[in-house]
Amino acid sequence: MELNVRQKKIIEIVKENQPITGEDIAKKLGLTRATLRPDLSVLTMSKILDARPRVGYFYVGTKTNEGLLKFLKESPVKDVGSLPIVIAEGKSVYEAIVTLFLEDVGTIYVVKDSYLSGVISRKDLLKTSIGNKDLNTIPVEMVMTRLSHIVYVNEDDSIYEAISKILTYEIDSLPIVTAHDVNKLEVVGRFTKTNISRLLMEFANGN
Amino acid sequence: MELNVRQKKIIEIVKENQPITGEDIAKKLGLTRATLRPDLSVLTMSKILDARPRVGYFYVGTKTNEGLLKFLKESPVKDVGSLPIVIAEGKSVYEAIVTLFLEDVGTIYVVKDSYLSGVISRKDLLKTSIGNKDLNTIPVEMVMTRLSHIVYVNEDDSIYEAISKILTYEIDSLPIVTAHDVNKLEVVGRFTKTNISRLLMEFANGN
Repeated sequence: MELNVRQKKIIEIVKENQPITGEDIAKKLGLTRATLRPDLSVLTMSKILDARPRVGYFYVGTKTNEGLLKFLKESPVKDVGSLPIVIAEGKSVYEAIVTLFLEDVGTIYVVKDSYLSGVISRKDLLKTSIGNKDLNTIPVEMVMTRLSHIVYVNEDDSIYEAISKILTYEIDSLPIVTAHDVNKLEVVGRFTKTNISRLLMEFANGN
Repeated sequence: MELNVRQKKIIEIVKENQPITGEDIAKKLGLTRATLRPDLSVLTMSKILDARPRVGYFYVGTKTNEGLLKFLKESPVKDVGSLPIVIAEGKSVYEAIVTLFLEDVGTIYVVKDSYLSGVISRKDLLKTSIGNKDLNTIPVEMVMTRLSHIVYVNEDDSIYEAISKILTYEIDSLPIVTAHDVNKLEVVGRFTKTNISRLLMEFANGN
């Protein structure tokens, strides 16, 4: 699955010039056919390229994935998200921790007047718990990530966009919001890496 | 994406009898054609079934996903896992927390004589941090999940099996091990929901 740089280059060349012989691919890369042999084997065995005798290599990779790509890009994230777990500003860090355990989630959204104002993760809570004796006296807004720094998706954004954000920002989950105004984001869901994992399995199993 | 029981039954019927008319599907289910109409619409719109006038319904769902399923079932999890972050028994909970933040991971594996003896999650550490003043004096083995309760995968197990375990046991990551003996598991990697998310995107984008 992890292709090396040369394998990725080969794919690009085949996409643009198919059918193309191994000899010609080697020429374009300034390498010998022998040097390329292992890479071409990997690519044909993994069904990314198809080789036909005396014709050359074809790209077949995307054909398999078109359906998935289309689905991810055309389906709104709200269709696959989970319910959000929220806590109101003014509540304590201790209450946030209790909520986290009771609801068994990794992230809690903080709301003020029912609009998103912050996000609290397990790591935020862990950081606060170390050396702080009375977690009952610390309000959640003291330790949360504030609105201006929150990465979120709009309910009509695509699943593809949501997954891209999770991977780019290296976060566990995203709030799904309905934007009533620039700073008036109503939290309507939560999109997590568990949702992504389920999607992959459902797609693989064809349902 | 979430199919109902009847839609799943329809898929099974079409798979076994294709091409099959809506009328015949209804008969097999003991329902009227009209009752089935919404389900058949969902299935054709989501490209799981294809309908051809005067011929009937075809199953097209798996065609798209065969490549993915084959890949997930035939590739060993070790090919896509990440490096494991480990800590030795005897180290303190405080040191585990520092490691967690430094390495920016969600789970740390505890080893004894270089074999897996436990797993510590952010939640384990959070639970311990509440009300415990001196985390330096608590050894990791006091708070970790012990070997007998750890869910893991062998390095040659398939990616499919690894994802199934993560979803079934509702956990964030799995240690990938080389088993030298029943209780002698060498931690060689870690498989996470981030790995799964990257796989989905790589597959969708065709590389």
